[in-house]
Amino acid sequence: MSAQAARAPSPQPPILLRETKGSIAVLTLNRPAARNSLSAATIASLHAELNDIGGDKAIRGVVIAANGPAFSAGHDMKELTARRTDPDRGRAFFAEMMTACSAMMQAIVHLPKPVVAAVQGIATAAGCQLVASCDLAIASEDAKFATPGVDIGLFCSTPMVALSRNVPRKQAMEMLLTGEPVTADRAREIGLVNRVVPAGTELGAAIELAQQVALKSAYTVKLGKEAFYRQAEMSLEEAYRYAAEVMTENMMARDAEEGIGAFIEKRAPTWRDE
Amino acid sequence: MSAQAARAPSPQPPILLRETKGSIAVLTLNRPAARNSLSAATIASLHAELNDIGGDKAIRGVVIAANGPAFSAGHDMKELTARRTDPDRGRAFFAEMMTACSAMMQAIVHLPKPVVAAVQGIATAAGCQLVASCDLAIASEDAKFATPGVDIGLFCSTPMVALSRNVPRKQAMEMLLTGEPVTADRAREIGLVNRVVPAGTELGAAIELAQQVALKSAYTVKLGKEAFYRQAEMSLEEAYRYAAEVMTENMMARDAEEGIGAFIEKRAPTWRDE
Amino acid sequence: MSAQAARAPSPQPPILLRETKGSIAVLTLNRPAARNSLSAATIASLHAELNDIGGDKAIRGVVIAANGPAFSAGHDMKELTARRTDPDRGRAFFAEMMTACSAMMQAIVHLPKPVVAAVQGIATAAGCQLVASCDLAIASEDAKFATPGVDIGLFCSTPMVALSRNVPRKQAMEMLLTGEPVTADRAREIGLVNRVVPAGTELGAAIELAQQVALKSAYTVKLGKEAFYRQAEMSLEEAYRYAAEVMTENMMARDAEEGIGAFIEKRAPTWRDE
Repeated sequence: MSAQAARAPSPQPPILLRETKGSIAVLTLNRPAARNSLSAATIASLHAELNDIGGDKAIRGVVIAANGPAFSAGHDMKELTARRTDPDRGRAFFAEMMTACSAMMQAIVHLPKPVVAAVQGIATAAGCQLVASCDLAIASEDAKFATPGVDIGLFCSTPMVALSRNVPRKQAMEMLLTGEPVTADRAREIGLVNRVVPAGTELGAAIELAQQVALKSAYTVKLGKEAFYRQAEMSLEEAYRYAAEVMTENMMARDAEEGIGAFIEKRAPTWRDE
Repeated sequence: MSAQAARAPSPQPPILLRETKGSIAVLTLNRPAARNSLSAATIASLHAELNDIGGDKAIRGVVIAANGPAFSAGHDMKELTARRTDPDRGRAFFAEMMTACSAMMQAIVHLPKPVVAAVQGIATAAGCQLVASCDLAIASEDAKFATPGVDIGLFCSTPMVALSRNVPRKQAMEMLLTGEPVTADRAREIGLVNRVVPAGTELGAAIELAQQVALKSAYTVKLGKEAFYRQAEMSLEEAYRYAAEVMTENMMARDAEEGIGAFIEKRAPTWRDE
Repeated sequence: MSAQAARAPSPQPPILLRETKGSIAVLTLNRPAARNSLSAATIASLHAELNDIGGDKAIRGVVIAANGPAFSAGHDMKELTARRTDPDRGRAFFAEMMTACSAMMQAIVHLPKPVVAAVQGIATAAGCQLVASCDLAIASEDAKFATPGVDIGLFCSTPMVALSRNVPRKQAMEMLLTGEPVTADRAREIGLVNRVVPAGTELGAAIELAQQVALKSAYTVKLGKEAFYRQAEMSLEEAYRYAAEVMTENMMARDAEEGIGAFIEKRAPTWRDE
C-alpha cells in the first residue's frame, strides 16, 4: 500500500490503490469495511487501471491484492438492492453491472501482461471469479474460496464461467451447489490457485512471481498469453495450425533472435523495451 | 431401502427402489445378484423415475444408490448377447440400448435438481458413467471405479463421454485402455468423486449432501445447474454473455429478491415452493 | 537399446533407435549429446516410424523413450538459428519445422495403437509436448518437465497445445510463464503423467504398461482411442450420439462377440489378429 494513499486525510479513501513495485503494478482493493465488494465504482476502477496498464510499457505485470480480512465478497448486494426501486425494478442496472463485471474479468484475460492474484482472506462469488480470472494465483494458508450465491437465491452464474475453466466439473459443482468454502490447500489441489504460502507472505510471493515473469521478454509473454487463451477454445487440429503460425512469427521477432542467440552463446539476453 | 419393497413376498423384487427422505428421492438399484447391471428395464425405470421427479415439486434432490456388493456393472451383457440371434444380429437392439442409456444419462444432467451418487461398491463401465453423470458423488472408502470394456472387446465409448468430462485426459485414458480399477481415494484425486467416507456411511452422506442443496431455492438451483452445463460448451466470450443474462434474470426473480433481502437483514430466507 | 544399434561402428549412430519387445515397438531418441533435441531429422524419423508402425499388424503398442540424461530438450535451436542467414531470414524453414513437428505430435494422437512415454530425464518445450501428446506416460522419480521457451524469447506455443489439454489452466500457465520445471510427483498431481517409478525402472514400466494394453483386442483399442480424442471436441449431446454409434459398431464386431462370449463363459478370449 502506498503511504500516500493510506494516510490520505480524505474521509473517503480510494476504493482501489495502485502502487508500483519495480515493473509490477499492484492493484489493491481498499474497501475492507465492505469486504471489498465489487461495486460499480470498484469494477470501473479495476477496468480503468487494467486499460491504463495495458498501454504502459513500464509495467510488465500486475498483482491484484486486497486490504482487510476478506479478499472480496463479490458483487455489492446493497448497491444492487437499492436499484429495486427503479421503474424497471433494477433490470437495466443489473444487466449493466453483470456486463461490466464480465468485461472487467475478460480484460484480465486479454491484458498482454501476466496478472497474479494475492489472496489473503475469503474470496467469494465474483471475488472468487476474480481469482479464477487471473493467470496465476497465490493464496495465504488462511485464504478461503466460495461461490455461495446459491445461499441468497442468486446462483454464481458469471463466477462459474471462470471457476469451471480452472476446476474439475464435480468440484466446481460442489462449490456452486453447496456454497461451502474450500480451504487454500484444497483450492490448490483442485487447480484454483498455484501456491499456498504462510499468512502474510502472499503479497510478497505474488509480486515476486509477477517479477519473475516480468524479467522475460514482454513481447513473448504478450504473444504467448494471448495464444494460450485462444487455442484453448479450438480443436486440436485448429490449435496446432494456429500455434505453429504463432511460433513462426515469434521466431522472426527480435526478442527470439536475441534470446536464442544468448542461449547458444551462454550469455544473458537483453530484451527490447515493449 | 424401503421395508415394503425389500420384504415384498413377490419372487421378483422391484429392479429399482424409490423412497423419499424428506425432500430427497433415493433411487436404489436393486438387482444385487446381477451386480445391478443396467438392463433395458433398469435404464427405462431410472429414466421414468427421473422424469417423474423432474415434475414433482415436493422433491428437491435425488440420490442414486445401489444394493449389494457392486454399485453397477454397466450394461447387461447377457441381455445384449441374447439378441445376437435376431435377424439383424442384434444391431437394432444394441443401437436402441446405447441410445436409451445415453438419453438416461443426459436426463440426469438435464434434471433441474441436484443428483448425488452414493457409491458403495465397484462401479464399472456404464456404472462408472452413471457416477460421472451425476452432479456430485460420494464414495465409500471401499468403492472402486473402472471402465473395463476393453477387456471384453467392447471399448467403454459411451462411458468415456461422461468420464472424460470429469477426469484429466491421461488418467481417463489409463482407465479406458487398461481397464484397471481405481480406488475411491484415487477417484477423488482425479475428480471423479467429491468425497470419500467410511464404508456404510456413503448413503447417509449422499442424502445429507442432497438435503443441504435442497434447502436452497429450487428455482436458483434449477437455473444454475442448467447454466453450468450449457456454458461449459461455450467460448469464454459466449459464456460470459450468456451467464450475464442468466444472472440478470436471476436477480429479477422473487427468490433472489427474498434471499438478498434476508442476507442484508440478517434473517433466514423463505423460498417459494417451486 | 538394441546392442546392434548402440555398438554400431559408424561415427554417426542412428538418431532414433527402434527395437521390438514382444508386440511393442520401443522408439528411443538417441542424440544424448544434443539432449535429444527434436531436429528436422529426428522429427522426420519419429513420424516415419509412427507411420510404419501404424500399418504393422505385429506391433500393438509403442513406447517413446530416450538415451542420456535428458528426455528431450525440444526443438534444435542451433539448427533453427543456422537458417537465419536464409534469404527469408529462416521464415519458411521455421514454418516448415513447426508444421512438421505439429504433424508428428498429431500422428501420435491418430496412431491406432497406444503410445506410452518413458521419461527418464528432463523433458522441455517440444520434449514436454512429446510427453503430453502420448496417450500415457511413465516418469522416473528423477524426471522433470518444463516449458521454458519464454526464457529465450520463444514462447512454447505449440507445446502448450498438448500441455493445456493435459493440465489444469493455472498450472499450465505457471509452467509456460515462469519456465520453471516441475518434478515428476508434481507432474502426476497435475495430470501430465500417469505414474512415477523409481529411477531406472521407467522404461520397463512403460513397456509393461504398453504390453498390458497390447493384450486387448487391437480392433477395440483402435476404435476406442480414435473415439476418445474425437468426442473430446464435441458437445455432450453430439458426443453421446457419436459414441452410441461407435458402441453399436463395436458390438457388431467379431472381437466384441468373442470377448463378451468369453466373459459370460468365464474363459479367456482369443482376439483376431488385426
